[in-house]
Amino acid sequence: MNFADVSSQDRGLAYGDGLFETVRLAAGRLAWWPEHLARLTVGCRVLGLSDPCDTDLRQSIDAAVLMSGKTDAVVKLIYTAGAGQRGYRRPDSVQPSLTVLVDNLPEVNPAWYAHGLVLGVLPVPFAGGMPTLTGLKHLNRLPQVMARTTWPTGVDECLLQDESGLILGGTQSNFCWLEGDCWFTPPIRGSAIAGTVRGVLNAHLGVKVVPLAVGRLALARAAVLTNAVWGVLPVGRIKGNLGGAWAGQMLELAPARQLATRWQVLSAAQDRPDAMPSWTQTAWVSTLQQEAFLTGVMI
Amino acid sequence: MNFADVSSQDRGLAYGDGLFETVRLAAGRLAWWPEHLARLTVGCRVLGLSDPCDTDLRQSIDAAVLMSGKTDAVVKLIYTAGAGQRGYRRPDSVQPSLTVLVDNLPEVNPAWYAHGLVLGVLPVPFAGGMPTLTGLKHLNRLPQVMARTTWPTGVDECLLQDESGLILGGTQSNFCWLEGDCWFTPPIRGSAIAGTVRGVLNAHLGVKVVPLAVGRLALARAAVLTNAVWGVLPVGRIKGNLGGAWAGQMLELAPARQLATRWQVLSAAQDRPDAMPSWTQTAWVSTLQQEAFLTGVMI
Repeated sequence: MNFADVSSQDRGLAYGDGLFETVRLAAGRLAWWPEHLARLTVGCRVLGLSDPCDTDLRQSIDAAVLMSGKTDAVVKLIYTAGAGQRGYRRPDSVQPSLTVLVDNLPEVNPAWYAHGLVLGVLPVPFAGGMPTLTGLKHLNRLPQVMARTTWPTGVDECLLQDESGLILGGTQSNFCWLEGDCWFTPPIRGSAIAGTVRGVLNAHLGVKVVPLAVGRLALARAAVLTNAVWGVLPVGRIKGNLGGAWAGQMLELAPARQLATRWQVLSAAQDRPDAMPSWTQTAWVSTLQQEAFLTGVMI
Repeated sequence: MNFADVSSQDRGLAYGDGLFETVRLAAGRLAWWPEHLARLTVGCRVLGLSDPCDTDLRQSIDAAVLMSGKTDAVVKLIYTAGAGQRGYRRPDSVQPSLTVLVDNLPEVNPAWYAHGLVLGVLPVPFAGGMPTLTGLKHLNRLPQVMARTTWPTGVDECLLQDESGLILGGTQSNFCWLEGDCWFTPPIRGSAIAGTVRGVLNAHLGVKVVPLAVGRLALARAAVLTNAVWGVLPVGRIKGNLGGAWAGQMLELAPARQLATRWQVLSAAQDRPDAMPSWTQTAWVSTLQQEAFLTGVMI
């Protein structure tokens, strides 16, 4: 872990004026780096920061990873608008600052693989975030922090819904569910994050984007939760008691494990540069653009 | 200015998990400190942080002010949930961290006193913020940063409106307007901040809280902008071109100056402890509670 300090004048601290990325380091290799870089680049363009430099980022990451001595870890990048005077207005010449933290992989409960996660649904509507920042991994995450404090007991992750009863995703993950023989994921809305793994499932494994009203969860045969640290994890049970008749359900594990396996096969293909030209990044960004919340941002 | 660094693991940087206060130091004295402390305390309770300790805060502020050698300045406090592991969940035992920055007073354009500020109105609806955090000076301020980048040219401050066309306030200030012989201010909604000066005007100088649709600006005879750094500043002109017939207007300066003077008289009374028992803080918090967005938070 790197404990290098940050300027108290950093606009990331003052206003959350910046972005982050959480990248899985697997056997010394940064997983899905082009996708992370693509999202960070989109974020910088929306925020009006200069494009991040791949080479500079990689050098800083390599140095931090080397110093940590780890080969399997979570690499967290915090990329901000840098130090500035007080006030919302950025300095005329912004010097972005980068912090790289190399952290141990979180412990994954073995029961998650054996029986799947227990997934709750927060009954309180979740608001927060501005439409133009939707999907981005920006530093304004108080809504998620607050949601995290109100999870019911006995759940491993919790779905968030908006005031219309539409599911936004998990508090710290994206959500995909199986209906009939088709996998779906809700569109990225509000302060949901356009996850890299979700993007891969969407672009390459046929997962379709469809709005998900809370009640429709009753149609789910199986479900997975995804993020860059977990990869793809099966959901074993949804605990739901939202005032109506629906009280959650048990899910099938086999289809979820099958999707996880397909994702792992794709992940392994990253190690063969010949099998992995830059198509993933392009397809991933194209997926974002198809969801229309990044209209006008060219990459 | 204090440049003491902040831990790169601070949750204020990672998620904006914290609050800030911007306090005016006037002739060596912190203006309206009880009101600032009250807002910070309310914020801590809503965020689930332990109450800040007045004595500890004052010691840190006094030390930073002494080191700065300044007697007239802006004192900015950044109060966060402290260092923590990666993840939205706070550590079981939170150790809040405090950063104190003592900064020069910003230059106030002399034309602002002579002719009043030129106030714009952002035509794009402003969203962001979660209802339970409304009014608080929390660290999730990317919406304001983004709004600040889109100001039209030639304005000194810009009003923000929500998707219903209701005014939220200025980007970095609260707004009061005179209609007939009565001063009004819009209710605190969305990510607007319950300003300390606004609270004083509201609790002690008869400024009433009334919703303000954009079109109603046409009824304004005079207007002021308020924040802890500016105090009360007159608006000379509103520049508005929102697609309708209304294209802004010139305002009277005399009533705005009169309100500013009344506020200054109250401010001066703070120096006489006999004239200033704790009624202001109580009245100020009571004002917040009357606006109902802090229901359930007892102070």
